[in-house]
Amino acid sequence: MIKNMLVAIVATLHVVVIYSQENLVIPAPMDYNVSNSRFIITNDFSISVKGHSLSRLYDASTRMLQRLKGRTGLFINQYKVSGEIPQASMFIIIDRYGKNQLYEDESYQLTIDSNQIILKAPTDLGALHGLETLLQLLLTDGTSYYFQGCIVNDSPRFPWRGLLIDVGRHFMPVDVIKHNIDGMAAVKMNVLHLHLTEDQGFRIECKAFPKLHQLGSDGEYFTQNQIRDIIAYADVRGIRIVPEFDMPGHTTSWFAGYPELASGSGPYQIEKKFGILVPTMDPTKESTYQFLDTFFREMTALFPDEYMHIGGDENNGKEWDANPAIQDYKKTHNLADNDALQASFNKRILGILMKYNKKMVGWDEIMQPDLPKNILIQSWRKGGLYASAKNGFPVILSNGYYIDLMQPAEKHYAIDPLPDTLSLPDEQKKLIIGGEATMWAEMVTSETIDSRIWPRTAAIAERLWSPAWVKDVSSMYKRMDRVSIQLEELGLTHEQYSDFMLRRLTGDYDITALKTLVDVLEPVKQYHRVSSKEVSYTTHSPFGRVVDATRPDTRIARHFNMLVDTFLKYKNNIQIYNELKNNLKSWVNNRKVLEPIIQKTPALKEIEPLSADLAEISMTGLVALNYVKANKKASEGWRQNALAQLKHATKSKGQVEIAVIKGIRALVEKVR
Amino acid sequence: MIKNMLVAIVATLHVVVIYSQENLVIPAPMDYNVSNSRFIITNDFSISVKGHSLSRLYDASTRMLQRLKGRTGLFINQYKVSGEIPQASMFIIIDRYGKNQLYEDESYQLTIDSNQIILKAPTDLGALHGLETLLQLLLTDGTSYYFQGCIVNDSPRFPWRGLLIDVGRHFMPVDVIKHNIDGMAAVKMNVLHLHLTEDQGFRIECKAFPKLHQLGSDGEYFTQNQIRDIIAYADVRGIRIVPEFDMPGHTTSWFAGYPELASGSGPYQIEKKFGILVPTMDPTKESTYQFLDTFFREMTALFPDEYMHIGGDENNGKEWDANPAIQDYKKTHNLADNDALQASFNKRILGILMKYNKKMVGWDEIMQPDLPKNILIQSWRKGGLYASAKNGFPVILSNGYYIDLMQPAEKHYAIDPLPDTLSLPDEQKKLIIGGEATMWAEMVTSETIDSRIWPRTAAIAERLWSPAWVKDVSSMYKRMDRVSIQLEELGLTHEQYSDFMLRRLTGDYDITALKTLVDVLEPVKQYHRVSSKEVSYTTHSPFGRVVDATRPDTRIARHFNMLVDTFLKYKNNIQIYNELKNNLKSWVNNRKVLEPIIQKTPALKEIEPLSADLAEISMTGLVALNYVKANKKASEGWRQNALAQLKHATKSKGQVEIAVIKGIRALVEKVR
Repeated sequence: MIKNMLVAIVATLHVVVIYSQENLVIPAPMDYNVSNSRFIITNDFSISVKGHSLSRLYDASTRMLQRLKGRTGLFINQYKVSGEIPQASMFIIIDRYGKNQLYEDESYQLTIDSNQIILKAPTDLGALHGLETLLQLLLTDGTSYYFQGCIVNDSPRFPWRGLLIDVGRHFMPVDVIKHNIDGMAAVKMNVLHLHLTEDQGFRIECKAFPKLHQLGSDGEYFTQNQIRDIIAYADVRGIRIVPEFDMPGHTTSWFAGYPELASGSGPYQIEKKFGILVPTMDPTKESTYQFLDTFFREMTALFPDEYMHIGGDENNGKEWDANPAIQDYKKTHNLADNDALQASFNKRILGILMKYNKKMVGWDEIMQPDLPKNILIQSWRKGGLYASAKNGFPVILSNGYYIDLMQPAEKHYAIDPLPDTLSLPDEQKKLIIGGEATMWAEMVTSETIDSRIWPRTAAIAERLWSPAWVKDVSSMYKRMDRVSIQLEELGLTHEQYSDFMLRRLTGDYDITALKTLVDVLEPVKQYHRVSSKEVSYTTHSPFGRVVDATRPDTRIARHFNMLVDTFLKYKNNIQIYNELKNNLKSWVNNRKVLEPIIQKTPALKEIEPLSADLAEISMTGLVALNYVKANKKASEGWRQNALAQLKHATKSKGQVEIAVIKGIRALVEKVR
Repeated sequence: MIKNMLVAIVATLHVVVIYSQENLVIPAPMDYNVSNSRFIITNDFSISVKGHSLSRLYDASTRMLQRLKGRTGLFINQYKVSGEIPQASMFIIIDRYGKNQLYEDESYQLTIDSNQIILKAPTDLGALHGLETLLQLLLTDGTSYYFQGCIVNDSPRFPWRGLLIDVGRHFMPVDVIKHNIDGMAAVKMNVLHLHLTEDQGFRIECKAFPKLHQLGSDGEYFTQNQIRDIIAYADVRGIRIVPEFDMPGHTTSWFAGYPELASGSGPYQIEKKFGILVPTMDPTKESTYQFLDTFFREMTALFPDEYMHIGGDENNGKEWDANPAIQDYKKTHNLADNDALQASFNKRILGILMKYNKKMVGWDEIMQPDLPKNILIQSWRKGGLYASAKNGFPVILSNGYYIDLMQPAEKHYAIDPLPDTLSLPDEQKKLIIGGEATMWAEMVTSETIDSRIWPRTAAIAERLWSPAWVKDVSSMYKRMDRVSIQLEELGLTHEQYSDFMLRRLTGDYDITALKTLVDVLEPVKQYHRVSSKEVSYTTHSPFGRVVDATRPDTRIARHFNMLVDTFLKYKNNIQIYNELKNNLKSWVNNRKVLEPIIQKTPALKEIEPLSADLAEISMTGLVALNYVKANKKASEGWRQNALAQLKHATKSKGQVEIAVIKGIRALVEKVR
């Protein structure tokens, strides 16, 4: 009854294109026409699945309803998904089961009007994407929850949209991996690249060579049952699992159990430090290839994906140079240098993988023009992307997508694998098939990894899914912030973990003042933490300090900095002025409240100077704000002092930096 | 150097007993003598394990160091655990490997002075408890982190200290179970009772009869590999897993796949509603026992614990009464009533379990005087505990420990299985071997269960571990609140989940006002929610509404109510007065801020009257507070109005009630 009434009210269908301003969805759909109609959601919401009866689609529909329930408190029955509901709220119509592999059709069409929702897709994998779009279209007018009416025609720009998780340097348990798989599905990513072996850890059970995981992992590894569980979990969410076994370098952990594989004389232990290390496989011994053949026979049977990653990066050649037998081998086999030796190694490995029906993936370093052109290059180095394409190799981009470097989402967002300006023949452009965000794990643990991946990876997901012309940064941030809360419902802890860490450090429930500070702090960027001179990090360093509780691209600081920009355009806007003033005042006042807490907490001592700096620059910011508002002139001395103070405050402490300096400096610079 | 200096300062050892006032540990140790010395924790903290080299103890030590690192930010190496460190910070000395079974020695002795820490225990299981005690002794003086010097001699009062988790009514995934196992270990509980089968779900893979889990679980069940994983995880934490297969009632989900087991004619479907239901196994058919023999053969091989629980509760007999063949059978076999029929069923099941070397556990209903006296009774009914002991059966208590009823921890804390006042012969007292908190899952999901178990279960853990004379409620609450933050480090979400739910419901980051309200709300108690007249709940109802984001025994309301009590004793204490005033004012003012948020959020509409009530009674509270402080008289009319207003406000809305009414009423009642 109520439903019909509301339907009548909104019945006038008026389709308008409202990109960037009102688009709710991230990644933005290819083609999105919104209407004024609304589909009101009621307790009796039901889904009819037509065409094929697929458990993958049924389960996804059930999960979608479950999430809808969580957000609305509506008494929806998530099991109202069936093939036979003539009056269903939603119809899903698919042609066939989707193969979870590269180049599968992932398109979908979603039509919402006041009467019903229709989701059509050639494959169920496309329909899964449509369900995620639908969930992002949820709105409320205060009376009802509804889906905004629209016609969405969507398909991805690139077929390979990946996230690398490095479980080698710090292990990540199954539930962390699963939550991230759900997060990836929510933003339409489709490849989880598991970096399974590193100098610091061999993270997968190997039945043929059990000392690999037994002596190479400190007991932290995936059993094969767990791997099968992860693969199945990912598959029903439309996500492929591509495993990486990095070789010949990055292999110290292999040698803890099997030193005979190494080029040096050992003995070897799991590495606890970080960096480019010396231990490297011996590519000159036949026994190495026999070992790897047996190893890959087991692993290729375990992982169903057609691609397998062999790493190949950052072999510094030192262990080869120090081994006379290897030097002899190079001479005997006419191998000019270590690159040539590694190329010969790669060819042997390729032969093994081909025998087991796998395609090979590797980092830039494996790109040797005389290798067959069906191997895939993952480019982490500047220029590697186009070099690979020019040499005829399919390639995916990771350079620019290093989310471990703690940079703002907009930096990654600006990196387009195929920018307009690119001059490359079409057949070479076609070789550029996507990209991967890389979550290297020197500085993360299972407690912090979600906050380093999310929500920023949503911006990379959009770059890889949406049309190239979707690049409005402020729209992206709006949608990224919106989806971040939605990602929490998948078990991701990126929003919650910081409060927990602050409670743990202080042993106190009231973390208000500490949070006020932490909300405008960010971890240092690029390689400044891992190569810090203050602290020498290892795998067993504590990763629960204040720096770990701070977030990259912190929302509150970002909002402040953007608000300053707006204020400088609209100086008479009293609302913006007041918000800036209140922010700055709260940061000035926070120091006094926080001081006694810092005094009784040794773990907080390292951020005491930041608390002081924030108070001081905020005071300066307040003065500048009022100067600018009143259009008053300040003395050059004041300006110089202020800028010097800000410069001083840019210095990180405890590997943490203040993220509102940009906005405050903009205010100071505007003072004349 | 610094260490030595500090050691010198605190070297005067002065042992004093400081129970209740300064005890930090929950459950309180049996014998705890604290000294003035302090063991200062430094980055080079190391543990030497003497006597036996046991991976269980090594792993626990590593986890302990990991947690220490998390709280302190110290650069401790968690792998510094070895058998050969002469100058270690801590020595662990054990005699033998502990058997993870009833009556194993769990005692330990912990000695901390300024130079070293010594943990001695007859078994490694005792040492695990000692490690948890140590972690709770962590303190800081603002300069260093240290362990308070002490001599602890500790062992449990009862050998069976359990937590029941009902995964039947709502399934709980492996990671939820694991986090709770860690939580149990932190408060020295030692039995996780998994209630695996219910009318609403059959939650374990059965290879002999796969339709049990396939048709009985909506796809939500533990695989046998997962069960083995859980058992291993629990074992290394000193926790036994006791599985329950409830029968002959509570078995609807079995019949979805195997209707021939039932006493009725079916067809049967998984039950979605709650309550005492009709479907019951047919105890008169030989095929039932053949089925159960095969079933238990499989399950007894899977679960290593010597005990297996067969439920036996709440068979209402209706399906037996309606079946003429069963009625005939009763006559033929001289079975006077349904109780006698169930007793004969129990005897058959007992025979099967004994064949597979298991001891039987069941609820009160299975206690039949002619059963052998080695079966264990779990008493959920009033009086069942002593009735069982009097009849010679070993028995554990759950009546009074129903944590699903949302009552304050102090209620459970007051329930002692063996109170001083009990007159029972010693040999019968000895039969009372412990108790179990029961987390029935009608109204919880994996999102909320941690908040329903923790931290209140710590109070029950103390009742079952600590000496009977440990019963100071305010000391218990102080220690419970302290350990609650520590429990977060184990992955438990009881502190974090509420903010997440409020963000999900509002789609907004700023939940301050909503949180201010929610912090003084509690879910309705006892059976008022499950039998609510406003809402008819099923397994697929949404459990993410405001009621689910509220917590039982909410800390902030509890603190307010206690503070009022203190104020009424010390009316001139201006600090207490101010804190009460500020609390009340913030609740008065909160309504205005919250109102627009409620207006735009349909899911919050149901708590709008609570927001209004809280503002109004807080205003009344403010008036009363000032009357009391000024020792002024109010008119009888004002008092009557105020009490009527409070009475009105006690009415729950949305299955939620205001938890500060008690304190405000105490103020009003004090006004003369």
